[in-house]
Amino acid sequence: MKKICVLGSTGSIGVNTLQVIDEFPGEFEVVGLTVNNNITLLEKQIEKYHPKMVVVRDSRKARDLKKKMGNRCEVLTGDEGLIEITKNLDYDILLSSLVGFAGLSPTIEGIKRNKRIALANKETLVAAGQIIEQLMKKHDAEIIPVDSEHSAIFQCLVGEKNDEILKLILTASGGPFLSKSLDEFNKITVEQALAHPNWKMGNKITIDSATMMNKGLEVIEAHWLFNLPPEKIDVIVHPQSIIHSFVEFIDGSIKAQLSLPDMKLPIQYALSYPHRFDSNFVETKLHEIQNLSFQQPDLNKFRCLQLAYDALDLGGNAACALNAANEIAVNNFLERKISFDRIPDLIEEALNKAEHVSDPDLETIFETDRQTRLLVQNILN
Amino acid sequence: MKKICVLGSTGSIGVNTLQVIDEFPGEFEVVGLTVNNNITLLEKQIEKYHPKMVVVRDSRKARDLKKKMGNRCEVLTGDEGLIEITKNLDYDILLSSLVGFAGLSPTIEGIKRNKRIALANKETLVAAGQIIEQLMKKHDAEIIPVDSEHSAIFQCLVGEKNDEILKLILTASGGPFLSKSLDEFNKITVEQALAHPNWKMGNKITIDSATMMNKGLEVIEAHWLFNLPPEKIDVIVHPQSIIHSFVEFIDGSIKAQLSLPDMKLPIQYALSYPHRFDSNFVETKLHEIQNLSFQQPDLNKFRCLQLAYDALDLGGNAACALNAANEIAVNNFLERKISFDRIPDLIEEALNKAEHVSDPDLETIFETDRQTRLLVQNILN
Repeated sequence: MKKICVLGSTGSIGVNTLQVIDEFPGEFEVVGLTVNNNITLLEKQIEKYHPKMVVVRDSRKARDLKKKMGNRCEVLTGDEGLIEITKNLDYDILLSSLVGFAGLSPTIEGIKRNKRIALANKETLVAAGQIIEQLMKKHDAEIIPVDSEHSAIFQCLVGEKNDEILKLILTASGGPFLSKSLDEFNKITVEQALAHPNWKMGNKITIDSATMMNKGLEVIEAHWLFNLPPEKIDVIVHPQSIIHSFVEFIDGSIKAQLSLPDMKLPIQYALSYPHRFDSNFVETKLHEIQNLSFQQPDLNKFRCLQLAYDALDLGGNAACALNAANEIAVNNFLERKISFDRIPDLIEEALNKAEHVSDPDLETIFETDRQTRLLVQNILN
Repeated sequence: MKKICVLGSTGSIGVNTLQVIDEFPGEFEVVGLTVNNNITLLEKQIEKYHPKMVVVRDSRKARDLKKKMGNRCEVLTGDEGLIEITKNLDYDILLSSLVGFAGLSPTIEGIKRNKRIALANKETLVAAGQIIEQLMKKHDAEIIPVDSEHSAIFQCLVGEKNDEILKLILTASGGPFLSKSLDEFNKITVEQALAHPNWKMGNKITIDSATMMNKGLEVIEAHWLFNLPPEKIDVIVHPQSIIHSFVEFIDGSIKAQLSLPDMKLPIQYALSYPHRFDSNFVETKLHEIQNLSFQQPDLNKFRCLQLAYDALDLGGNAACALNAANEIAVNNFLERKISFDRIPDLIEEALNKAEHVSDPDLETIFETDRQTRLLVQNILN
């Protein structure tokens, strides 16, 4: 039985992960769970999976839960709790699906311990890709991507050679505003932006999908995951979200991975790799697919995507600043404090103003994150 | 330098193979060439590649060429010549692209010598799959398929496990008569049947593509190549011929291999495997692809496809009989002696009348081939 620690167990990826685990009773054992503050769901999960350790980031809710649990399960709290669980709990696979920058430090703990990281937290690689790359070389950890796009690429690359890749081509649904004209972008409501046509995901990532920053972050992530320069990573809009990504090889052959959209498939793959387990989460009837289409992304409309490439070109701590600025901008949009079209403005301004460090250590990354958040908040105040 | 012997060097696959070889001057050396009777082109090929040995099946033309060549190049003839070149010439890769049943014996010689077989002759596996499978186990030969569909599947399976395959899904263009109604099938002319919408190929295979027998033969071939039962091999019509085939795995994940149609790509892969070589034969611009669509094949219209599944279910020498009957029927259609819609009638009648042998040896296969050809010719006389 593989022991699994799920960071972010009440989020969309976390819940799907537990559903995958339910399908294979003899294969996986849930030993750790962490949540921000949803202790109602966490209690049910504890009831069902009997983890040895849980973390509730919200300290008041953690206290409440600790009282209820007694010695049935160790309850920790805060970012220290996240470090503690990833550093000391006995697990084989760390499912890292915290939202945003908070996922970085606990994921690093897993890497240092030479564990398999099933990575759904894109900010780990976006903000600290260079550092993660160095850690991966030093320790013998293994990152298996959980994002459907990177999982697709990972699957297409099984048995292939890295130096025979011509290009990775990440598919993007284009989000809900693919055919909306740019003039109307300032009137986009939170509800419209949260109504993603193909995927059910958390709020932050759904907005990122509407701005296409999600794809930009994925480009940066792909750069570090697959060790390829930005010019070898393309994005193509594919509104049906059936093909999850392509790899083009130097001989002109292209491989693709596809299925009806369901996050359980890449999650399961990240847990079962190098095997595939028999499951029925997704059944794709190809003959029912009327049409798969493709178009180039409009970088004038979806400026966030271009900004991500810019940050990757800048290198150093730029992608960290991009990510921090995006988190604050998206939060402000979700809180209805700024309009949709201000998101890229804020990020661009932050990228221009943030102090550039070309070879940042982890402290610098944290500092860049803190400073950029302040910077964007200051622009807004 | 890999030494290559090309069986059928003036045919469509042969010519494309030599074009691939031209692209990689340091990698391949052409040591043997064989043709049916096109000695004009063969002479040019000898001039360019200086093979050690050639075969001209037509004995009169072989004599003509032998006189011209003197001792510049050994010239052999007939089926004995094909055995001689494959049995005794020093080569690493046997590109087996003879049309029809004639490819079987020379290919077997290559297998017995433990060579890589780049297989474009589908009849080898269709007629004698069981025998080939046994020979493959005994000798340590390697078959790399050249057909775009099987190459696609082979590429999708690199790094994957055979017992984790749910289904192979071969794509079929549907040929020129995909939207023609069945009532009009008796009026189809040779010219109409030879006008394939996507691929330029030889006459026999182009007619097979119009009847969808081509896909039927590919199903049988896939059965032996990938060691999977017929119920795990599906066919889907994909009129654009961009996706060359799919593999669906037990976890619901599907992989596909795609490109603009060009036989040079799978030929190159069969020569370069396990590597991929940098080449510019095909550049597929995904954003220019407006639409990829899929539909189930109509087995009432394309009865040949169903007949191939039937032959596979019958097992033994049935697929050999199917193949022989098809060759005679197609020849008669190309010679304008029968109508297009009689092709499946003749094959069905032959399958019903041919003597069934469940565990045929090679002699029985040859005998089944001979007898079935006679049988179909007798029906027609």
